[in-house]
Amino acid sequence: MYVIITYDVGEKRVHKVCKKLREYLTWTQNSVFEGVITKGKLTECLSEVEKIIKKKEDSVYLYTIDNPKNITKKVYGQSKNFDDMFL
Amino acid sequence: MYVIITYDVGEKRVHKVCKKLREYLTWTQNSVFEGVITKGKLTECLSEVEKIIKKKEDSVYLYTIDNPKNITKKVYGQSKNFDDMFL
Repeated sequence: MYVIITYDVGEKRVHKVCKKLREYLTWTQNSVFEGVITKGKLTECLSEVEKIIKKKEDSVYLYTIDNPKNITKKVYGQSKNFDDMFL
Repeated sequence: MYVIITYDVGEKRVHKVCKKLREYLTWTQNSVFEGVITKGKLTECLSEVEKIIKKKEDSVYLYTIDNPKNITKKVYGQSKNFDDMFL
């Protein structure tokens, strides 16, 4: 399956969420990760993320597309690179 | 078609991009819009957004799913409301 995960979490938790998602998916842009992942790995990933976030304050959106062929992606402007942003 | 648009643009252009996307799509979260849109309206929307962004600095990601039935969405934590954020 193909997933897109976007998050809007408290400043103190941004780095932790980002680091955890990076173990499973590809960083796309500020607060957006995406990639092909198995159902099992996704469950594991979300369970880890749920341990980090504060459910009353933070929000994490998961978009799932069962067949990666059903989604197309296009970039306008710059395609950013994780390392450009953080190193 | 169903689209998700995420953007990472210079501070001076955030409000303009947000306002423009809101004319066509539903605000989901900080820098994320989504919704059902026709191909014609999407072309119009992107043409407007391209007039606002600086292509060498900003990035806008468009994910397109032809059939809205092929995407599922799940929220972890709080489902935020546009008005909660900006009013």
